[in-house]
Amino acid sequence: MSARAGPAAIQLSRIMRPDDANNAGNVHGGTILKMIEEAGAIISTRHCNSQAGEHCMAVLARVERTDFLSPMCIGEVAHVSAEITYTSKHSVEVQVNVLSENILTGVKRVTNRATLWYVPLSLKNVDKVLEVPPIQYASKELEEEGKKRYEEQKLERLVTKERNGHIIFPVINPEPYTVGYSQSSLIHLVGPSDCTLHSFVHGGVTMKLMDEVAGIVAARHCKTNIVTASVDAINFHEKIKKGCVITISGRMTFTSNKSMEIEVFVDADPFVDEPKERYRAASAFFTYVSLSKEGKTLPVPQLVVETEEEKQRFEEGKGRYLQMKAKRQAQMPPLTQQ
Amino acid sequence: MSARAGPAAIQLSRIMRPDDANNAGNVHGGTILKMIEEAGAIISTRHCNSQAGEHCMAVLARVERTDFLSPMCIGEVAHVSAEITYTSKHSVEVQVNVLSENILTGVKRVTNRATLWYVPLSLKNVDKVLEVPPIQYASKELEEEGKKRYEEQKLERLVTKERNGHIIFPVINPEPYTVGYSQSSLIHLVGPSDCTLHSFVHGGVTMKLMDEVAGIVAARHCKTNIVTASVDAINFHEKIKKGCVITISGRMTFTSNKSMEIEVFVDADPFVDEPKERYRAASAFFTYVSLSKEGKTLPVPQLVVETEEEKQRFEEGKGRYLQMKAKRQAQMPPLTQQ
Amino acid sequence: MSARAGPAAIQLSRIMRPDDANNAGNVHGGTILKMIEEAGAIISTRHCNSQAGEHCMAVLARVERTDFLSPMCIGEVAHVSAEITYTSKHSVEVQVNVLSENILTGVKRVTNRATLWYVPLSLKNVDKVLEVPPIQYASKELEEEGKKRYEEQKLERLVTKERNGHIIFPVINPEPYTVGYSQSSLIHLVGPSDCTLHSFVHGGVTMKLMDEVAGIVAARHCKTNIVTASVDAINFHEKIKKGCVITISGRMTFTSNKSMEIEVFVDADPFVDEPKERYRAASAFFTYVSLSKEGKTLPVPQLVVETEEEKQRFEEGKGRYLQMKAKRQAQMPPLTQQ
Repeated sequence: MSARAGPAAIQLSRIMRPDDANNAGNVHGGTILKMIEEAGAIISTRHCNSQAGEHCMAVLARVERTDFLSPMCIGEVAHVSAEITYTSKHSVEVQVNVLSENILTGVKRVTNRATLWYVPLSLKNVDKVLEVPPIQYASKELEEEGKKRYEEQKLERLVTKERNGHIIFPVINPEPYTVGYSQSSLIHLVGPSDCTLHSFVHGGVTMKLMDEVAGIVAARHCKTNIVTASVDAINFHEKIKKGCVITISGRMTFTSNKSMEIEVFVDADPFVDEPKERYRAASAFFTYVSLSKEGKTLPVPQLVVETEEEKQRFEEGKGRYLQMKAKRQAQMPPLTQQ
Repeated sequence: MSARAGPAAIQLSRIMRPDDANNAGNVHGGTILKMIEEAGAIISTRHCNSQAGEHCMAVLARVERTDFLSPMCIGEVAHVSAEITYTSKHSVEVQVNVLSENILTGVKRVTNRATLWYVPLSLKNVDKVLEVPPIQYASKELEEEGKKRYEEQKLERLVTKERNGHIIFPVINPEPYTVGYSQSSLIHLVGPSDCTLHSFVHGGVTMKLMDEVAGIVAARHCKTNIVTASVDAINFHEKIKKGCVITISGRMTFTSNKSMEIEVFVDADPFVDEPKERYRAASAFFTYVSLSKEGKTLPVPQLVVETEEEKQRFEEGKGRYLQMKAKRQAQMPPLTQQ
Repeated sequence: MSARAGPAAIQLSRIMRPDDANNAGNVHGGTILKMIEEAGAIISTRHCNSQAGEHCMAVLARVERTDFLSPMCIGEVAHVSAEITYTSKHSVEVQVNVLSENILTGVKRVTNRATLWYVPLSLKNVDKVLEVPPIQYASKELEEEGKKRYEEQKLERLVTKERNGHIIFPVINPEPYTVGYSQSSLIHLVGPSDCTLHSFVHGGVTMKLMDEVAGIVAARHCKTNIVTASVDAINFHEKIKKGCVITISGRMTFTSNKSMEIEVFVDADPFVDEPKERYRAASAFFTYVSLSKEGKTLPVPQLVVETEEEKQRFEEGKGRYLQMKAKRQAQMPPLTQQ
């Protein structure tokens, strides 16, 4: 996987501050997702402009499933390194590794590995997708593996599109542990620092808000210290422009003994000076676990499902949970320290 | 009013940045309210700790009605100056003036005048209100005027308490220009930088979020560039602790030809490790106007009221509007440059 | 100078956002100083904890004179790389290089080179300075050059201490181009994200605020787009604790044809919970230039000095200016792209 095939890798590092973390001192998953995406955007924009021609910005199209392997804490340094591992005609695959470093003890831990897909959009005409300069692969096998990953994600993107009609309806006076009890939504007015040079929202900004809502849903459900355990693949269906109001809504779909799955929707409302209707910009499943003060995972109260739809979503969540469990047991990733 | 009676005045200054403003470059009312409150908190905390004894933080209890007299823009410097103008046994009155300075042209404008009431809470026991050291008044008249303001606000606080049962219910598929069409709510997880040294939310942080929601309601209603014109008196009924989730909800209550009134509620949910129920922490009325690209006020679409309750709230809003209009015509404040 | 003597270097990279820059799109010198200091704090804290023993944080004691060699713009990526180049018994010298990268054109420019001195303070007892593990030098010459730099800065620190009695008094109705006309001050309440793990303000946070004030002074004087050209050596005399209010004041001391020198003072006021008086925490000279829309340096209006003290400060500023000019002509640094 570490092809070291593309142009020079990039590394972002930053000390984790109190504002990056929850009350227990654990850095929000969203903070890390935002740094991951910034690294990906830099390296893929740099690559896509490496040949003479029209200037472009690489825009996030998809993030593959991402696990949070160990928590990061306030005062630690996050090191985010990215490299390009595959290019198709119109897209760039970036692989990102995140390490936490405790600069007092010297201990380093791998906290994340992520794969992101970017598409280069012209700076002059943001609806125009430009061609991506090809990279050199260290071997024919690496190129073929990359192509396989490319085809797989293309297929999966079609599937999620179908889920996009879903709307989260408000519930009045919900019972504890029901879906309505913990469901939450927030609105955010898109400001200049949320945006790229073409005034569209950075994918990382959107993911940070998604994680924030998912975390509130999880905490409302189990009323303990919760942390992001993983994020399912996220597809970014449509760009979001500066000045939009975005609504990010989350609802719990499934609980196992020790985890909760939360579905999150992002809707954009280009309400000023725009003829466009509100539209679905992204959706995703976040998995959270509940932690004791000593950092051990706690049992999670079972989600109470009431309607037929809720039952169906619970079963689908269970499917994703079991599939992932099986996959993890099969792989057992070699998480040695780097 | 400018008694210069209390201890040394304080002045905060800061350049307005892109993130402080809307897309049209007008600084959010909430940014200014937050600066006003920070100045008030510093000067009153300093005063309350000026005598030997238990240490305390001054906590915002109430802001009197505040007008936004002229817009502030990105790149201008906001100067917020505060002085203590009255003290009762347990509270401090602070008066704040805000000037905008265009550092390129040298033009200064008065943008706000505000009056805030603070209460000193012990750092050791946050439920204990400490005594306020008395200030010296330049004349007996100034002291008596201060006492009158103190009694008036005390009375008004009782009245608003009664309004606090109101809840904003969600509406499915609302028609344009109805109350349900523009009503909005956001949630915010209280982080460390939102809080004072005793880990309670700064009043200014709450006001900034309130203004953000009110602004989104106003923009959804009229779909133009909108700016805060005034805020009615705000009472802070209960403190909000770090780690709470706060829900800020807004609904339109009244429209005149050129203004919109939005009612905003703040509810706190101390959901982690706390036996406390969700509670109402503050509420307020914000008035917004709609501006053209040249900065002129535009007509506002009439609010469509449907239920009896909405009609009643509309009439009440009209009452506040007419009262304020009469007051303003009677006073005609001498807005000379300072 | 690039000894590569110490432990592994570190690199911080980040996209420059609208809030990092002024209205003309030039990144604030303060944003860069803050990143430089973060890199220095990480690498020196890591080094000082590299041997078994008491844990510590490295705290900024001094920054040597720093030139801003070329402007950085919104959308560019700042790469800040730091390495340790000398250690004495109780201090660490860090050298930092800053590159700007335009990821659209591929152009990279050296924008800064800085030298910082850190002192390791125990996490348990912040008044205790710990010993610094020695580094290996590539050659005896490198070690001796480092020792010479160490002795020089030690001497200079004594000199600046004497300047610290100065206070900036307000002036009523000042004439244009006088010192009083442009002098400015701002106050900031220190929050959690401004602070290190021992709850003291990061040197970089202080420098960012100093640059903000200096920039306001410069813009008031010449009413054009201004950018930081250099910062004279800054000494950090005393730590600043969370919860303090800091006052940062600036006044112009000298103008040449194309530059302005601004003196900045930082005073800390530990107003709650502390018996301590307000004290001087740092002071520095910033040099600014005025730029046209095309980025060319513009003539600067001559500073009008009125009092004897102002005249003396002007002469001292002229001395620093001429000394630096002579030094630069002697050196002519080889500013080739790295």
